[in-house]
Amino acid sequence: MAHYPQETFLNVKLAPGSFLEKKRHTASVASLKQQLGFLKSTGRYEAFKLKWLPVYDEPPAIWPIGSWLFWDSDIGKWLEGACYFLHTDYDAEVDAAVQELTDMLSNAQHDDGYLNLHYSIVEPTSNRFTNIRDFCELYNAGHLLEGALAHEHYYKNDKLLGPMIRYVDLMIKTFGPGEDQLHAYPGHPEIEIALLRLYERTQDKRHFELAKYFITERGNPKGVDGRHYYDWEADKRGDDPNARPYFYPERTPSNWYYSASVPLVEMQSVEGHSVRPMYLLTAVADMVRMDPTSTSDFQKAIVRLWEDMVSTKMYVTGGIGAMPQYEGFGIPYFLPQGTDEGGSYAETCAAIGIMMMVDRVLQYDLDGSFTDIMELAFYNAVLTAISTDGRKYTYINQLASSNANPADRSEWFRCCCCPPNIMRTLAIIGGYFYSQPASTEVGAKHVAVHLYSSSTLEFTASDHPSKLTQTTNWPWGGDIDFKLETSSKAVSVSLRIPQWTSDWSIEPVPPLKEVTKGYITLPAEYLAANPTFTLKIKLDVRMLASHPFVNTDIIAVARGPIIYCVEDFDNPWVDDHFKSLQLDPDARVTERGVKDPSTAEEYVSLDVHRGASLLPIKSLKAEPSIPWRTLTKAAADTQLIEELHLVPYYFRSNRGGKGMARTGIRRWIR
Amino acid sequence: MAHYPQETFLNVKLAPGSFLEKKRHTASVASLKQQLGFLKSTGRYEAFKLKWLPVYDEPPAIWPIGSWLFWDSDIGKWLEGACYFLHTDYDAEVDAAVQELTDMLSNAQHDDGYLNLHYSIVEPTSNRFTNIRDFCELYNAGHLLEGALAHEHYYKNDKLLGPMIRYVDLMIKTFGPGEDQLHAYPGHPEIEIALLRLYERTQDKRHFELAKYFITERGNPKGVDGRHYYDWEADKRGDDPNARPYFYPERTPSNWYYSASVPLVEMQSVEGHSVRPMYLLTAVADMVRMDPTSTSDFQKAIVRLWEDMVSTKMYVTGGIGAMPQYEGFGIPYFLPQGTDEGGSYAETCAAIGIMMMVDRVLQYDLDGSFTDIMELAFYNAVLTAISTDGRKYTYINQLASSNANPADRSEWFRCCCCPPNIMRTLAIIGGYFYSQPASTEVGAKHVAVHLYSSSTLEFTASDHPSKLTQTTNWPWGGDIDFKLETSSKAVSVSLRIPQWTSDWSIEPVPPLKEVTKGYITLPAEYLAANPTFTLKIKLDVRMLASHPFVNTDIIAVARGPIIYCVEDFDNPWVDDHFKSLQLDPDARVTERGVKDPSTAEEYVSLDVHRGASLLPIKSLKAEPSIPWRTLTKAAADTQLIEELHLVPYYFRSNRGGKGMARTGIRRWIR
Repeated sequence: MAHYPQETFLNVKLAPGSFLEKKRHTASVASLKQQLGFLKSTGRYEAFKLKWLPVYDEPPAIWPIGSWLFWDSDIGKWLEGACYFLHTDYDAEVDAAVQELTDMLSNAQHDDGYLNLHYSIVEPTSNRFTNIRDFCELYNAGHLLEGALAHEHYYKNDKLLGPMIRYVDLMIKTFGPGEDQLHAYPGHPEIEIALLRLYERTQDKRHFELAKYFITERGNPKGVDGRHYYDWEADKRGDDPNARPYFYPERTPSNWYYSASVPLVEMQSVEGHSVRPMYLLTAVADMVRMDPTSTSDFQKAIVRLWEDMVSTKMYVTGGIGAMPQYEGFGIPYFLPQGTDEGGSYAETCAAIGIMMMVDRVLQYDLDGSFTDIMELAFYNAVLTAISTDGRKYTYINQLASSNANPADRSEWFRCCCCPPNIMRTLAIIGGYFYSQPASTEVGAKHVAVHLYSSSTLEFTASDHPSKLTQTTNWPWGGDIDFKLETSSKAVSVSLRIPQWTSDWSIEPVPPLKEVTKGYITLPAEYLAANPTFTLKIKLDVRMLASHPFVNTDIIAVARGPIIYCVEDFDNPWVDDHFKSLQLDPDARVTERGVKDPSTAEEYVSLDVHRGASLLPIKSLKAEPSIPWRTLTKAAADTQLIEELHLVPYYFRSNRGGKGMARTGIRRWIR
Repeated sequence: MAHYPQETFLNVKLAPGSFLEKKRHTASVASLKQQLGFLKSTGRYEAFKLKWLPVYDEPPAIWPIGSWLFWDSDIGKWLEGACYFLHTDYDAEVDAAVQELTDMLSNAQHDDGYLNLHYSIVEPTSNRFTNIRDFCELYNAGHLLEGALAHEHYYKNDKLLGPMIRYVDLMIKTFGPGEDQLHAYPGHPEIEIALLRLYERTQDKRHFELAKYFITERGNPKGVDGRHYYDWEADKRGDDPNARPYFYPERTPSNWYYSASVPLVEMQSVEGHSVRPMYLLTAVADMVRMDPTSTSDFQKAIVRLWEDMVSTKMYVTGGIGAMPQYEGFGIPYFLPQGTDEGGSYAETCAAIGIMMMVDRVLQYDLDGSFTDIMELAFYNAVLTAISTDGRKYTYINQLASSNANPADRSEWFRCCCCPPNIMRTLAIIGGYFYSQPASTEVGAKHVAVHLYSSSTLEFTASDHPSKLTQTTNWPWGGDIDFKLETSSKAVSVSLRIPQWTSDWSIEPVPPLKEVTKGYITLPAEYLAANPTFTLKIKLDVRMLASHPFVNTDIIAVARGPIIYCVEDFDNPWVDDHFKSLQLDPDARVTERGVKDPSTAEEYVSLDVHRGASLLPIKSLKAEPSIPWRTLTKAAADTQLIEELHLVPYYFRSNRGGKGMARTGIRRWIR
């Protein structure tokens, strides 16, 4: 059996009152029902009764995508998250809603298994699967299938999974290499993830094969009649080649937008919409784990694209996607902080995709360089997307605000992929903490610890019921006390040592302090002798720069896995979104424990003493260049900020204010 | 009479062998006939016989613009330049071609005065003036009219100007505020410039009024039926609103592309395609000069948009337009050096537009801050666009090369606006050197000297035939010897003192050394006593930085009006387009006089001694951020370049090589 956090989270008990338990609890008691309310008030809930809604008459805000085209997925993600929470936080209203939705979905299914809102009510059913590129039937189906897997796991019935498997049967008939089949693959990957999870449950090889077909066929330049499937399909629809979806900056075809310019095994660089390759690579990694011999080229593609992304297209927060227009990757090293500097997007769903992908990779390659980024993305690019009260969200996680895009939050979005995504992610967050590599799976005797948070993992080691407990104040404190409770003498544990730490130790001292690919393994003998031990990771304040090719010369401040930002709430003198602020990377920074009175959030804030200043921008003359010495003189004339106050980036936009915030700060050269 | 360089250049004799005389001579003996050859071989020449050409069947490369849609303007610009050169460098072949083209154009004219290639042969004539936004009839007409003005000036007959005035008569009937008139204005300004020049020749007020109507109506949000003219026109054509011209990055309407989002008097920032606002503002400045009282809001708009452009959207070379897709302005302070950093375009025609605009502004506002930019743009963004042999061009004047866009030149372009534009500009370059402000026009006793180059201006001062001669090695030497020859005792002279110089003097010392708006005025008494005098302008090597908000932290090297660059020809070790090169702004730089053996170009090259280095980029790990100290350590590990060799930017891409060049160099912090 594979490790899927969607299932293993049930083996992990988050310690009450711990940082992540509080986040999960908020999602459960606030977000889940707040989102149910919006599903209902926006029509998404009732939509599956297949009555006509006024919204269907509205022209698409993002042509050609009607705003209801992803409603199936919103329902699927909410259902999925709701079923996870029902295991641990039963709620009768949620239970009733899940069951009602299940009935509605089941009733909305066509006789042949087809299930999709748009082609059941807005456009004729006969048009189904004619715009596989943009109309996202398979994306929707993937989320509904993931919801059905969670439903079956909780309710132990097939009221939703049964219909979804019938839909998958229709897909198996419809898609494939056969002459009478469509050689298609989804414009937005997701069904691949769901099919592989389904395969693990059903062991029906056809489920694996369909996922593999979608992955392998993707980007085939000669998929049908010697042409790319999307181009063939567009011509078949009679699309005007000059009619461009709003999200294409340039001409058609723009198959790069879909991560489908070339087959994945040939792709050299992540491209296009940033969520799509993350979901795709999540499925690819799962496929590699299941069938490593036939998929080694895909394994190489994962590494190649990952390294390209992390080194040239990732923000210091772990966010990805600089380009607002297509929610996607820009050119290498193009990482503006804000839209007034050329773009900054870093969509929440893309960061969640990083977590999903890394979790799958770690199943076959325990490599802490992946885990470090998963933690970075989670604590910053993901956690920042939900308010402390669990009722407001961000979709775009820009690094700096501007007048056009102030730092703020919304309760809902027209395209509302992110809120249910973060809710379902927090529901299973414990599942990301630990894994038991597949090779030792039967009576797993080896546990790898990826993330640190007070919690207890229950597992069996060669039939011995066992527990591994960690107690820590992470991410604010770096000491993690472990307790292993097992009657087995054969349990070993690997602990991730983050690359960013300047020092770490384990007490009692283990026999070998060797770190292999970011993990130290404590052998069974050591653990038998030392069932309690402490990992101490030094959480220095770190001053981070960008690669010299990045187009902004900034310093970002980090402590442990947390990236910090400045907000006007703590620095009320700001009037320019901190654009003229400079930060000395050698500045003295002090830490301060805070319990915020308005949100009750507890965190460590950072104060910079006489290490930041404001450039006198207004005194610089309007010219296409400035004599270098004028600039140094201007730099010398800067106005010193006695104390600059920083808060965790994830905590931004929770306390009101003027909507001014910035993460990377201009480097002060003195 | 106004000063137009198109006419006053005949009063200026360039000294044989001087820097600019050689450039003009090359354009005359090489470019003029080389371009005539391409006009013939590409079909542009014969096209006006109105026979069908195969190119008309080709789908537009830049949809919806067929590549022949601007051919009228190519012919117009070439004709114009040819007529200027005929005055000074008579050539029988050129003369014959001009006369043959004149006949062809005259024969191609419709009975009602209409004259346009596309609507005479490719699309039905009845469709004329139905796509005023994109199909550029009025732009073409403007260039043909400027050609006709030059033709009449040389041939002293109306064989071309007569037909063009008949076309203007048709425009006067067609366009205007009347109920039966089109409330239209050209998608690409140019006719406005031509109409105002025509008005100066004809004194027919209707010519002024039509230009003023086009300028004033532009951007009217309620131009026709309560709607913007371009939107109304697009609907009338039945355009699919989702069919986007290739040059629109985002959805329709994109009237900002045409500098028509709002009326000019309300516009706060230059926008869109960068040539259009320059041509528009050229005409606006001429209109302001002619009728300052009724156009003061336009005068304010010129200053406002100029300051916005110069301070936030201009490259260190004087080039404008960062965005290749629409050849236009990006957001403020977005000035990447190369396309691999997000864009760099700086089209030649836009820089020529700056020169045209400044020349017009100086007629009513003698302000050296305009002139400094005109000189910057001319010596760098314009001169770089023509090879030393006058046979190859650049269209895009990027500041740094990349693998996708190496530093190179072409003999011709599909859209070939730039080569004839630079040719006609060099033809009249002497006309930019001097002006005699309109207020003193009758027997002008005052001469303003804007640009320095060995030359003689002939003028009359209160009926006294007079001469002002300057002898200088500018732009390589800063001493300018002047000689005033006149029997008038009332001539005064203003000399521009560039803002960039650190020191200057005049010998013999004038009574007042006061500089007003960038000019010192030598009074008549001083000149009567000192008919020969010398202006000495110090030409230091200057290290230039960008405004701190600009997204690249670079140093550019300048000396006098010349901006320098590095090329692989002189620095053959380069393998990354100088991306990892760093330059110390405090480095020691020495000057060296060079006569290049392959091109015979004489210039001053600059050598940087132990002041440049290469960052060890390859040793930096792939991560979304780099600890600041790693970066400083990497900076310390840089590989010193003993001697870095720089050449004038205008001289780039003339000697072969690998196509690697860069202007602004990363600032080395040590």
